[in-house]
Order: sequence, then C-alpha cells, then structure tokens
Amino acid sequence: MEFIIEQGIFHQAIQDVSRAVSSKTLSPILSGIKITADKDKIALLATNSDLTIEKVIPVCCQQSHRLQIIHSGSVVVSARYLGQVIKKLSGEIHIKGIALNKIKLISNGIEANMNGLDSIEFPPPPILDDSKDISMPFLDFKRMVKQTLFAVSKSDTRPVLTGVHLSLENGRFSCTATNSHRLAFSRGTVDSKETVSCVVPFAALNECSKVTDIDHGNMKLYITKQYIAFQFPSITLFSRLIEGNYPNVESLIPKEARTTLTLNKELLKQGIDRASLFASASDNNKILLEVIEGLQLKICSSSTEYGEIAEVQDIVSLNGESELTVTVDGNFMMDALKAIGEDEVQLSYSGSMKPLLLQAMDSGMQFHLISPVRTA
Amino acid sequence: MEFIIEQGIFHQAIQDVSRAVSSKTLSPILSGIKITADKDKIALLATNSDLTIEKVIPVCCQQSHRLQIIHSGSVVVSARYLGQVIKKLSGEIHIKGIALNKIKLISNGIEANMNGLDSIEFPPPPILDDSKDISMPFLDFKRMVKQTLFAVSKSDTRPVLTGVHLSLENGRFSCTATNSHRLAFSRGTVDSKETVSCVVPFAALNECSKVTDIDHGNMKLYITKQYIAFQFPSITLFSRLIEGNYPNVESLIPKEARTTLTLNKELLKQGIDRASLFASASDNNKILLEVIEGLQLKICSSSTEYGEIAEVQDIVSLNGESELTVTVDGNFMMDALKAIGEDEVQLSYSGSMKPLLLQAMDSGMQFHLISPVRTA
Repeated sequence: MEFIIEQGIFHQAIQDVSRAVSSKTLSPILSGIKITADKDKIALLATNSDLTIEKVIPVCCQQSHRLQIIHSGSVVVSARYLGQVIKKLSGEIHIKGIALNKIKLISNGIEANMNGLDSIEFPPPPILDDSKDISMPFLDFKRMVKQTLFAVSKSDTRPVLTGVHLSLENGRFSCTATNSHRLAFSRGTVDSKETVSCVVPFAALNECSKVTDIDHGNMKLYITKQYIAFQFPSITLFSRLIEGNYPNVESLIPKEARTTLTLNKELLKQGIDRASLFASASDNNKILLEVIEGLQLKICSSSTEYGEIAEVQDIVSLNGESELTVTVDGNFMMDALKAIGEDEVQLSYSGSMKPLLLQAMDSGMQFHLISPVRTA
Repeated sequence: MEFIIEQGIFHQAIQDVSRAVSSKTLSPILSGIKITADKDKIALLATNSDLTIEKVIPVCCQQSHRLQIIHSGSVVVSARYLGQVIKKLSGEIHIKGIALNKIKLISNGIEANMNGLDSIEFPPPPILDDSKDISMPFLDFKRMVKQTLFAVSKSDTRPVLTGVHLSLENGRFSCTATNSHRLAFSRGTVDSKETVSCVVPFAALNECSKVTDIDHGNMKLYITKQYIAFQFPSITLFSRLIEGNYPNVESLIPKEARTTLTLNKELLKQGIDRASLFASASDNNKILLEVIEGLQLKICSSSTEYGEIAEVQDIVSLNGESELTVTVDGNFMMDALKAIGEDEVQLSYSGSMKPLLLQAMDSGMQFHLISPVRTA
C-alpha cells in the first residue's frame, strides 16, 4: 500500500470515521482504522461492532495533489495515534506499507513508523442485499431526528425505547421517541412506496446528525432486517437495529383538550429555564404551571433547602376551561420547547391522568407529550 | 439588608468570588457567599478556608443605576444557586432580606426567595496587621507566575514543593517552582526595601493569574507569617502560606556547559510536540535529542506498541562539544518552551548527571532546569 494525500483531507477523514471507534473496546483491532488503497480511491473504515462508519476519498483528476495512489493494499492502525500524528503534520503526507502490518508516514522531513494489525481480521461492514432503499432530503431527515432524538430512554430496562422508531408508509415518514414519561414525534413526506418500521439506536442517529459531509441535497437509507445504512456523498454509516416491538403510541395522544393555551415560546422557555434552577435541586425537576384568571400563566418551583422562584407571563389566548394547575418535569418541557422552532406554542391539557400535548402553531409536523408529575 | 444592583455587575462579582468556593466542602456555610451591604458599598466574600476572595462594589455617584443601597445588613446564600439565579435574570435586581437569613430577589416580574445561613458564622478573612506590603506592576507579577507556576509538584510527598517560592531581597523579586525533576525560575525588579521569602499554594497564584479586574497598573502584596494577600482594584485574594523550608536551588544551576545549542524555539516546540505523541504512550514521556555532526538536532521517540517518530532540525549555532545524546521528559520540555516567549532558545548540556538548562536569548529573566531521564 502506498499513497500521497493532503493532510487536511486525510485528517478530516480520520476524524469522520473515528466517531465509530470506542475508547473502551477490549478488542485491539476495533481500536483501529482500516485503510484500504484501491486503484482510484482510498477507504477508511472504523467500527465498534454496533456502529460502522466508512469514508471514501476518490482520486480526482482535476486535483491530483489531493490524493495520488501508488500501490493498492490495506492496513489497520490505531485510530487514536493515527489521528494525533496526522493532526500535527502539514502539507502532503506520503504513506506506505513497510514490513508486515507496519506503515511509514513521511511529511516535511518528519518520519513516523506506526505498528498496525492484520487488516484481514477487521470486521467487514454489513452486507445490504435485499435492502429497501429510500432517498430523502438530508435537511428533512436532520430536522426529524433533532425533534425526537433527545426523548429516547436513557435506561436499558426496555431496550427498544433507547432508540428512535422510524416508520414509512404511503410516503409518510415519521420518527418517534419516548421514555414512557414523555414522547416526541416528528414527520415528513418521502417520495417512496416502501413500507418500513425499525428502531435505530441513539448513537447512530446522533452521529448522522453531525455529518458535515452534506448540507443539503438527498441522502439514502438502506434498511434490512438487522441493519440500517445511511449514505451521504462520501460517508456511509451502518448501524445494527434494535430488536423488539415498538409500542403503539397512537392511543396515547389525547383526543380532546379541556384547556388549550397559546403561549409565546421564547418567554415560556426562559421561564421554565429559570424555574428549573430550584426544581433541579428537588427530585423530578417539578415545576408548577398555574393559569390565573384565564389571562396569565404562573410558573414556579421550590426546593425546601434553597428557596423558591416564581414568575407570571401573559397568555396569548386560551380555549376551554380557565382553571388549570399542573406539575411537570422542567427538563422534559425544556427539551420539547427547544425542539420547536416557531414563535408560538400550543399547550393542551386533558386532565390530570392524561399527558400534556405541546405543539407548534404550524401544520402539526411534530408534537410532544409530557406526563404530569403526580404530587402528593 | 436591601439594595438594587445591575445584573451584569452583580453576576460578574459572584463569579469572581465563587472561584474560592469548593464544590466538595463538608461545611454548609463554606458553600455560600457572604453578602454585606454597607452605607456606600456592598462586599461579597467566599472562602474554602485556604483561599478567600473578597470583591467590593462601591456606590458610584455618577452611575447610581449600578448600585443603590437602601438598608445595610448581611446574609450568606448558596454560591451555586445565587450564581445560577442571577445569570438568568436581567436589568436591575432588587434584593432584600426577608425573615431570618432569607432574601428575596425581584427583577422584571420574576420573584425568587432564597434560603440563607447566618452570616455571623461565616469565617472572616485573615487579619493583616504587621504585614509587609509590596507594590508591583501586575503584568510583571503575572509574567513571573506564568513562567513558573506549571513546574510545581503535583504530589503531596513534600508539601513545600506544591507551591511557588516568592522571594524579595534588595529589590529583586523572584518566583521559583520545582517538582525535583524540573525547575522553573523567573525574576523581576520591585521598588521595595522589604525582604520576603514565602511559599504560596498553586491554587492562589492560579486564581491571581485569572483576575480580570486589572490589565495593567500596580497590585499590592501583603505578607504575614501565615498569610499572603493580593490586592487588585476591587478584588482581594487571601491565601494561607505553605509552611516549611524551600530548598536552596542556587546549587542546582550548572556553572559550565559542555555544549550549548541555540535553536529556533517554535520549530523545537513543534518537534517536541510531535515526538510527544509516541512518547506519551511510554512511561516518562521519553524523548531522545541527538546532535548530528554539530549541525542538526534529531528529535525522536518510540513506543514498542504503537511505533516511532523522528525528525531532524537545523541548529542555529553550537558552542562546545559537538557530540550530544540526551533523553528528556517531553512534557517538561513542552512546559518550559511554552513559558519562553522569545524566538530563539538556548539549551545547555553539562553532563548526563546534570540538569539541562533552557534559557531565552534575552537578559536571563527566566530559566528552566530539566533533569535528563536515565535510560537503561
């Protein structure tokens, strides 16, 4: 294996795939990056066995200084050390295989030899035969992930809730996440006749949302029974799916509201943020919301140890009963409000045993459910 | 106690004194800030019993909107919660004592009540009767601290080495720090007839170097047998001194060099930085420096597990023997090189049992000693 590559491009590529390398891996080969040089491209591959990231850098005729391949071949070297060495070099880097599983890097009079591992032992990425493939705008996908990802369960008690449920039917694509105390739902339309239902781990979607390889345009999803692949222009991200049946969330959505408040989103967010100060000192981040005379919303919280905080905000409009007192988890409210981009937000209350419904004022592309906290 | 203060000023003051609050304190009163309102100023005080910081905000006739005092008094409230609450408010904040040890904060329709503690129990700052006081330019002091502070010992085996030795005699002020494997020394002149020798804890000097209260002009030092105080325009920092005799370091400085190299500092720093990559994988961060034919310096390091890195740099000039091979701790070299602002650096070698001497090319306002690492 031998090639010459520009430092900036190589460093970015190493960073891109290193996201799949776990620092805690017990298997030495998984702490490495597999570098493969072909006739017309190099490929970098890294995996933690659940998540695999591949980056391809093609030889480009117009820009021969970017990448020049001299001999094909492959090697596995420590992701951490390769990244650190490349970061401290500059200009063109000449990389070649020497001895068995060893590479030499030469750049501006600096020479580094790095010990590697046998590339035969590196696990290949999942094979995507018989996969359903879906093409969709990256920005749509990113929006739906951003509006739901935060709501997954952090606990392993029900593994299926630690991921986001992706669903596609009749061209309607949706993402759902819940930890059984709050739920986030977001949807969009996709030009596809496929039907899909799968649960994708938090980590995979989190990495997808950080991909800088694309800013607009389409990405592709390939879905098999056990795997999903996200394909961007030069990066492909493979993830194992979470097994198990995702709960049917349709029945949780309250059909009729007793009270619906329209509120200024930014003001509400700031108020919840302030009230969360003392709420976080107590368990459950309890914040009390109270409608005053149908005109104002009082937001307050208290901690026996530190004190209490309260503020009153004007309500934009109110529909239904004008009496309402409800206690919610301040963190759940903040997460939902951060996901909503619009200026106004609708908060619907359907009774103390039903979740609060939080929606933007728009077409209903997303909604959030938050269970009230029972107070003694 | 009752006063009205501008949010920005109060928030900055809380941040300034909060540096002295330890998050791990077992004594509830020490997790608080003591606020005292007088006729013409408010004072904030925080301490972790070793380090105490006091900030004074005077009432200023020209800018009555900054601070307005209605009633004097004092209270102690949680530094963490006070800081968080004030951060989320804006504009004018009206603060008043209500009930016993409780305060109310009012700002733009937001009301917070905070529980406090009895201010009588808050430890007062050290009394500085019979102290020696020294006035010196803040920038000089900051430079000397920066050039030595990093070199203190991180181990508690010899407590006196965990601090910086300040010495003043015949108008010559100096800072010395060592962990017995490397030493940093920096000096300046001060217009004072006092004689001083004391050891100041790392934490106190670290906080001093972060003070934003002053950018040039003079600061004052007050030194007693057990305490030192650093006085800036509105902040005073009190620290307990470290007891014990600081070692005499004069004898450690090699008198005659076998070889003295003049090197480009930036290039050397970059080379040491690169070589440190593999050095840090081994114990002791061992980096080998080797003079080649009296013209070039080879910098290399290796780790049996990951590989090796080597580079060759031109020597600006060489005096003495042209054969030199020495192994040093890469971290110690980096620290010393970072402390040197000049473009060129002199490295003197006096034998394998003597420390390397690193100096800027200037008047000898600072020097660094680094013991060679014995290799098997």
